[in-house]
Amino acid sequence: MNQRTQEILSWYESDNPGTRTNLARLLNHGKLAGTGRFVILPVDQGFEHGPARSFAANVLGYNPHYHFELALEAGCNAYAAPLGFLEAGAGKYAGRIPLILKLNNHDVLYDEKDPASAVTGSVKDALRLGCVAIGFTIYPGSAHSTLMYQQLRELSEEAKAYGLAVVVWSYPRGSGLSKEGETAIDVVAYAAQIAAQLGAHVIKVKLPTAHLEQAAAKKVYEAEQVPIKTLSERVRHVVQSSFDGRRIVIFSGGAKSDDKNVFEEARAIRDGGGFGSIIGRNSFQRPRADAIKFLHTIIGIYSGERP
Amino acid sequence: MNQRTQEILSWYESDNPGTRTNLARLLNHGKLAGTGRFVILPVDQGFEHGPARSFAANVLGYNPHYHFELALEAGCNAYAAPLGFLEAGAGKYAGRIPLILKLNNHDVLYDEKDPASAVTGSVKDALRLGCVAIGFTIYPGSAHSTLMYQQLRELSEEAKAYGLAVVVWSYPRGSGLSKEGETAIDVVAYAAQIAAQLGAHVIKVKLPTAHLEQAAAKKVYEAEQVPIKTLSERVRHVVQSSFDGRRIVIFSGGAKSDDKNVFEEARAIRDGGGFGSIIGRNSFQRPRADAIKFLHTIIGIYSGERP
Amino acid sequence: MNQRTQEILSWYESDNPGTRTNLARLLNHGKLAGTGRFVILPVDQGFEHGPARSFAANVLGYNPHYHFELALEAGCNAYAAPLGFLEAGAGKYAGRIPLILKLNNHDVLYDEKDPASAVTGSVKDALRLGCVAIGFTIYPGSAHSTLMYQQLRELSEEAKAYGLAVVVWSYPRGSGLSKEGETAIDVVAYAAQIAAQLGAHVIKVKLPTAHLEQAAAKKVYEAEQVPIKTLSERVRHVVQSSFDGRRIVIFSGGAKSDDKNVFEEARAIRDGGGFGSIIGRNSFQRPRADAIKFLHTIIGIYSGERP
Amino acid sequence: MNQRTQEILSWYESDNPGTRTNLARLLNHGKLAGTGRFVILPVDQGFEHGPARSFAANVLGYNPHYHFELALEAGCNAYAAPLGFLEAGAGKYAGRIPLILKLNNHDVLYDEKDPASAVTGSVKDALRLGCVAIGFTIYPGSAHSTLMYQQLRELSEEAKAYGLAVVVWSYPRGSGLSKEGETAIDVVAYAAQIAAQLGAHVIKVKLPTAHLEQAAAKKVYEAEQVPIKTLSERVRHVVQSSFDGRRIVIFSGGAKSDDKNVFEEARAIRDGGGFGSIIGRNSFQRPRADAIKFLHTIIGIYSGERP
Amino acid sequence: MNQRTQEILSWYESDNPGTRTNLARLLNHGKLAGTGRFVILPVDQGFEHGPARSFAANVLGYNPHYHFELALEAGCNAYAAPLGFLEAGAGKYAGRIPLILKLNNHDVLYDEKDPASAVTGSVKDALRLGCVAIGFTIYPGSAHSTLMYQQLRELSEEAKAYGLAVVVWSYPRGSGLSKEGETAIDVVAYAAQIAAQLGAHVIKVKLPTAHLEQAAAKKVYEAEQVPIKTLSERVRHVVQSSFDGRRIVIFSGGAKSDDKNVFEEARAIRDGGGFGSIIGRNSFQRPRADAIKFLHTIIGIYSGERP
Repeated sequence: MNQRTQEILSWYESDNPGTRTNLARLLNHGKLAGTGRFVILPVDQGFEHGPARSFAANVLGYNPHYHFELALEAGCNAYAAPLGFLEAGAGKYAGRIPLILKLNNHDVLYDEKDPASAVTGSVKDALRLGCVAIGFTIYPGSAHSTLMYQQLRELSEEAKAYGLAVVVWSYPRGSGLSKEGETAIDVVAYAAQIAAQLGAHVIKVKLPTAHLEQAAAKKVYEAEQVPIKTLSERVRHVVQSSFDGRRIVIFSGGAKSDDKNVFEEARAIRDGGGFGSIIGRNSFQRPRADAIKFLHTIIGIYSGERP
Repeated sequence: MNQRTQEILSWYESDNPGTRTNLARLLNHGKLAGTGRFVILPVDQGFEHGPARSFAANVLGYNPHYHFELALEAGCNAYAAPLGFLEAGAGKYAGRIPLILKLNNHDVLYDEKDPASAVTGSVKDALRLGCVAIGFTIYPGSAHSTLMYQQLRELSEEAKAYGLAVVVWSYPRGSGLSKEGETAIDVVAYAAQIAAQLGAHVIKVKLPTAHLEQAAAKKVYEAEQVPIKTLSERVRHVVQSSFDGRRIVIFSGGAKSDDKNVFEEARAIRDGGGFGSIIGRNSFQRPRADAIKFLHTIIGIYSGERP
Repeated sequence: MNQRTQEILSWYESDNPGTRTNLARLLNHGKLAGTGRFVILPVDQGFEHGPARSFAANVLGYNPHYHFELALEAGCNAYAAPLGFLEAGAGKYAGRIPLILKLNNHDVLYDEKDPASAVTGSVKDALRLGCVAIGFTIYPGSAHSTLMYQQLRELSEEAKAYGLAVVVWSYPRGSGLSKEGETAIDVVAYAAQIAAQLGAHVIKVKLPTAHLEQAAAKKVYEAEQVPIKTLSERVRHVVQSSFDGRRIVIFSGGAKSDDKNVFEEARAIRDGGGFGSIIGRNSFQRPRADAIKFLHTIIGIYSGERP
Repeated sequence: MNQRTQEILSWYESDNPGTRTNLARLLNHGKLAGTGRFVILPVDQGFEHGPARSFAANVLGYNPHYHFELALEAGCNAYAAPLGFLEAGAGKYAGRIPLILKLNNHDVLYDEKDPASAVTGSVKDALRLGCVAIGFTIYPGSAHSTLMYQQLRELSEEAKAYGLAVVVWSYPRGSGLSKEGETAIDVVAYAAQIAAQLGAHVIKVKLPTAHLEQAAAKKVYEAEQVPIKTLSERVRHVVQSSFDGRRIVIFSGGAKSDDKNVFEEARAIRDGGGFGSIIGRNSFQRPRADAIKFLHTIIGIYSGERP
Repeated sequence: MNQRTQEILSWYESDNPGTRTNLARLLNHGKLAGTGRFVILPVDQGFEHGPARSFAANVLGYNPHYHFELALEAGCNAYAAPLGFLEAGAGKYAGRIPLILKLNNHDVLYDEKDPASAVTGSVKDALRLGCVAIGFTIYPGSAHSTLMYQQLRELSEEAKAYGLAVVVWSYPRGSGLSKEGETAIDVVAYAAQIAAQLGAHVIKVKLPTAHLEQAAAKKVYEAEQVPIKTLSERVRHVVQSSFDGRRIVIFSGGAKSDDKNVFEEARAIRDGGGFGSIIGRNSFQRPRADAIKFLHTIIGIYSGERP
């Protein structure tokens, strides 16, 4: 185990060896093994957005085995999905790639202003399926954020006792925020901090814009001249907001987008000290060969030297 | 055990042999044994719509024994009902037909815009009554969908640990959807996906229309030219949306209808790669001899070659 | 044990011998022993309506011992009451009359539009007090019906495991129904069906009127010409709606009323195939001697031949 | 389901429908389905006597899959084995033959005068492996019989609550008995009675000799002239001692023996009203083709008319 | 994952994906990754024999970190030790080598003729320490074997539910056996069979001699001419006795011995179809460099083709 991996593990000093073992498994799998960087394949869009919106562009994606194979062939660190998708492949692919069981999910058939995901799996499910971590989404800014924080706390406490790691999707949403505010730098940094304070080992946020949502925060950002002009600076600020970089922070790729754009973002994440990307739609919504090439390019970007 | 049955069982790779045994029992009973096709008799309408609306047309149906005998004589794969109906016959008919205990039910004496069924039975009830599976209804689109997903998750984890199978009725309803939207192809496919992601072994949905309910989905269906013009195409899309056909999907017959129509639908289900029908009102709301003949015709349709 | 008693017990084929033994105790006590008919004395009005409204007309009723003795002397099949009333007499009258512990109760100091009773006793209470059954009230039509169904399910599963019988008071009430609808024939028949599907051994409903509350039901009653003109016909329809007569259905006497009227009703219940009456206010709100005579008359009516 | 099967099920009147369903599965599988007769393949000798003593004569038997296939091809009613052998095949053969998980086992590396088997599996194991019954051995006559009776009681109570059947191997052994006494008619009949009184659904005993072990018993057998001269008479007496034939009693084949002898015994079991044989070593310790032919002959004997 | 690894995993068909994942981790770590062969470092001698007897020959061994590093540097598949040794290094070496927590241990300060190990750890310990498996010792032949079998059964059921693998040290000992009998081929093969029947995924036994201990077994070995002359033949017989090679069987190195001898044994294990060695004293009781070289030689032997 190289020094960087050991350094990262050293941050999780209150966790038992089981949890650190599973974090090490995440750090040591795939093409980025040992670099302290991550590219994770998440496929929960079937539940979150519906099957056709997720898989019609590349119909192979309807098949749960496809994503295991995509993650494997691309050399991702891990594959994250809801219960059904993991149950449908965890037997065949046992031991071949670290798995993250997403324990809550939300659909848009009833799409409320203040969303709260349903708990759709258990820590024991994660263990019987051989996962290294549980995943959980919180919506800071929602009227139901308290409920989700508390569900996370309970699942997280249980997961840590059993030696699993905890990955938190922290996505600001709800009546507390404007649409633009959901990706405002002050809000995203705040969401990362909340996840870290809730005990997340790995934090996933969206890439932040330079918008400042909250007046009280805005005043400080301006007074203290926090550098947030470039994407790279904003990534650095989010990482700083996650215990000064002592928690793993990865960034979501978002909706399908222009490749050049995604690569640019990956470089900004890398240069800002981010730990990597979690890329779903941009990878599984294109032909397999394309997807592999695309993911290899991103992995190549992260394989570069740390700035 | 023939090859098709074994192929279907192989999809459930994370399940213990107990659950696979009970799935095999479903697959190997009745006239469709070994074909990988299903005709299931469900009788929960007494609870869901009231006794007279359910049984006045054929008063024999008030008697719980009637439905056991109908399912047996017709050669159905299984009989599904709430606690009371099963308790009233499970002793006499022990070991004669696979039973599915519906663990939640809803009545229309209080019929809210956003429905949530009451949990009316337990996994232990299912075991003491000799059932092969639990059944559970979710209403994606309801403001209470989260509650139902979570109840299902808990019951489902328990059922799987004890070797039972899980059958999910996924019926879009509630303030998130228009009336027409409840059977829209995008919504039905989505409902099937949600059930699959929640870990269902068998998914029951309504037959979809060509209507597209959600704007974001509509855009994709049109852009990707997902074929949904014929009923058969729509069935194929729902099956595809259920893990690319790696989960058993059956379709409900709906309200009493013209026979020719029902047979037409069965042919469309068969030709679209659907796994069968769950037919309640169309069978038990007519004279017994008629019902048997009617069910035999449908079973005959499914006995045909897989397209 | 005579044939009728054995026939009735045979309907409860999924129940253990303990539950069947307690049902037999109900069937074989008092003046109606062995007839398959019931007159039960229920006294929960102290809780439900307040003490003065319940007992001022006959002050002996304030004393819990009074009701045990009334039930005994009148030759009732059983006495049903909340925890306090049973605790206050179960010792002295141990072994002298079958007891039913009502496990939930509702008061009118807070009288909401959508009522839900409080759970006020346990299965273990019923066992330590020597009861043959638990009693439980559900309010189909209430916004809280789901809660009550689920409480019943849990208590009922426990009671059956411990060999007790389950008596369900199924009283339609709440914002889903008009006042008139609470006793409409379609609604009462539906309420009986719900109780049966929830696993009740004995179902108690109010006497139905010829009113039809729900449009969808009305259509069916008219189309199928379900006979509901006379009280006797309506009783027969409710019994039919309770698993075609394979569950014991008894009818409540309601508020204090003219004796002739009550006797008329008992005759209609008997002629319609009902299993008997549960008569509270009409019996304990009059002088003891009167009450005994009154109950003997009713018992005499039920002793007549089954039509 | 034919009349004989229903008659047999009717004896288990205190069992829930789940247990009766699993008894029906035993009664309705294989070539003897529906006859009320049984031929069961048990393979616990690997544990009980060691691998070479069990499988060297036919080395295919070392492979756990072999026995599933032997039982299937021969058309046995069920296959019974310890945890390891079932775990090693229950997935592949899910749903193809009723399984009985033997929950206790004994080895001869420490072979005490007063044996007590170790509990080596659980009721939950039986459920997750899809078994229809648990199996358990008691040694009446051992100083440790009390321990085994109590273990059986506990497991049996749990198994029945979950709808499983209970098969008891009742083998007299220990310091309370002479070697000859282990198969004495009074002792075997007594062992069958003990198993029945402990709540066994299916009782397995060894074929009894005409020897009478216990003085007090001997006096009665002689005074009452209990007919025990022929094997058939002794079988009839053992069946009589198992609740007058109201419990299923099957007989073990014992060590490998001359075929003619085994067939003779099967005829005596049949003629004495026994329910069948459980034949291990005589079947799996010979070449496969031979074993099938041998088992078919025995099944043929049992297929004959009931005397 | 190569074909041999997948073949081995396929034998564990009743296990959940979690257990199969942890078996895959054992199969895919170290220099023998992917070969289906194992060299495991076990260090429980400090508890079993005392510290000086274990570590005085190479005092580095007193330090728990030493053994983690030895196993890592040598390229072993796993490191197995009691609670204390694992707790003292699992944090530092988290994620670097698969760990097996030995859940029971025995010391010789009280050294009874019929030994029984004390349970010294829990399944939850194994999970919080990041282990892939639990380890457990049974002593077939001991008067207390029943106790140990039952402890194993309980721990094993729990471990499997949580996705861990189960490694069983099956060491015949106790008053049922002569000293020579502890390694007699009939006894070792029997011990392997018992472990397999108790549900072990990996079985560890001592290398057997050609001695035959039990008279009844001896007769069969001679009659059937079971080939047991060479060590390689005896290994093959033990593997055969472990479900015809469908369970992983590894052999212990025993007391410190001449290197040439150990290499010879490894070759015999390999040639007899054994899965590898578990080598403690022969490796950690010599200087580190020596030990590494020694282990590399053994690993080299196992890297050869499967015969």
